[in-house]
Amino acid sequence: MILCDVGNTSYHFLDGDDSYKKDVKNFNPKSVKEKVYFISVNAAIKEVLKELGNWVDLSAFVGKDAYYPTMGVDRIFAVEAVSNGVVLDAGSAITVDVVRDGEFMGGFIYPGVRAMNESYSNISPALAYSFNFECDLDIMPKNSQDAISYGFLKTLRCEVASHNLPVILTGGDARKFKKIFKDATVDEKLIFSGMKKIIHKVDIC
Amino acid sequence: MILCDVGNTSYHFLDGDDSYKKDVKNFNPKSVKEKVYFISVNAAIKEVLKELGNWVDLSAFVGKDAYYPTMGVDRIFAVEAVSNGVVLDAGSAITVDVVRDGEFMGGFIYPGVRAMNESYSNISPALAYSFNFECDLDIMPKNSQDAISYGFLKTLRCEVASHNLPVILTGGDARKFKKIFKDATVDEKLIFSGMKKIIHKVDIC
Repeated sequence: MILCDVGNTSYHFLDGDDSYKKDVKNFNPKSVKEKVYFISVNAAIKEVLKELGNWVDLSAFVGKDAYYPTMGVDRIFAVEAVSNGVVLDAGSAITVDVVRDGEFMGGFIYPGVRAMNESYSNISPALAYSFNFECDLDIMPKNSQDAISYGFLKTLRCEVASHNLPVILTGGDARKFKKIFKDATVDEKLIFSGMKKIIHKVDIC
Repeated sequence: MILCDVGNTSYHFLDGDDSYKKDVKNFNPKSVKEKVYFISVNAAIKEVLKELGNWVDLSAFVGKDAYYPTMGVDRIFAVEAVSNGVVLDAGSAITVDVVRDGEFMGGFIYPGVRAMNESYSNISPALAYSFNFECDLDIMPKNSQDAISYGFLKTLRCEVASHNLPVILTGGDARKFKKIFKDATVDEKLIFSGMKKIIHKVDIC
């Protein structure tokens, strides 16, 4: 069974235990002859894949009523994988979604590492530091680099911790955030787990 | 007694109860003949004012050991005005400083409204919403505008509230943040209060 999570920049495949990415610019989905179960936040590619008989869009099989119309399908599938927890997907944006007893409680969006870095730099060159993920967030900062690192990271950690639920980290920067959320689980295949769960639930495999 | 807080874009004066601003681009400080007690985060203007006999730089009279070398003098003077509290200065950046029993405990820097707005917009046009300061931060969002508003505001409020101290709001966006920090005091003249306190303390008036 091949799974594919299509983003704005790449096709992310899971084939058995093998995970690999293909650039959306030069990958031809017709080159795959096997059946592929996919989700896509990329509207243009979703249209292309609709025309291919062996690409099955899993988004059709998830109950949308629990979510909201503009919520990205990748967030929905990550949430579907979890029964109780806070899902923090650290990419270009950081999405934080809360699931309690299998129910999606809502979620929020925070800028990702790069976006936040640019944000501080644009305010003033005096704030153009990279973030210190080793910063001790339990004491108030007394230097500029820690002052912006704490501003970015402690505020986020404070909100996430307030839910008193296990934290699951996914997305490209998951391992960086593991330094901040020390008790969290890193699961880079969380979206694929959600996809598998839906496949088994609706028995389309 | 005339006080002046010099920023990167304007001279902010307090003359008795009158407060007014002059653009740094076209205001000539030589046009003021009275004695002016000032602080300046603007290094270029600070150099100019040094040459004028009637402009007195108050930064020389504050004990720097309690602070850190790159900390803006405006933050220091806002902190000097407070004995117990969290000072949130909402400008192009948001600075949050904690004072307990007259001692500066440290502080952090968070992007201001405009910088954060640009940050979300740059990640994706789908996140180019203005912030909803009326958003109920006690429930998890289920729409995109509230998801970014909550991301910006709830994370900040969570950290600020964790100190269990009175919150004092100052800076250009103080009144916006009053909607989020409902029990906070708005004090747009906080820096001037700090300046007056130092003047009386060191008895230079």
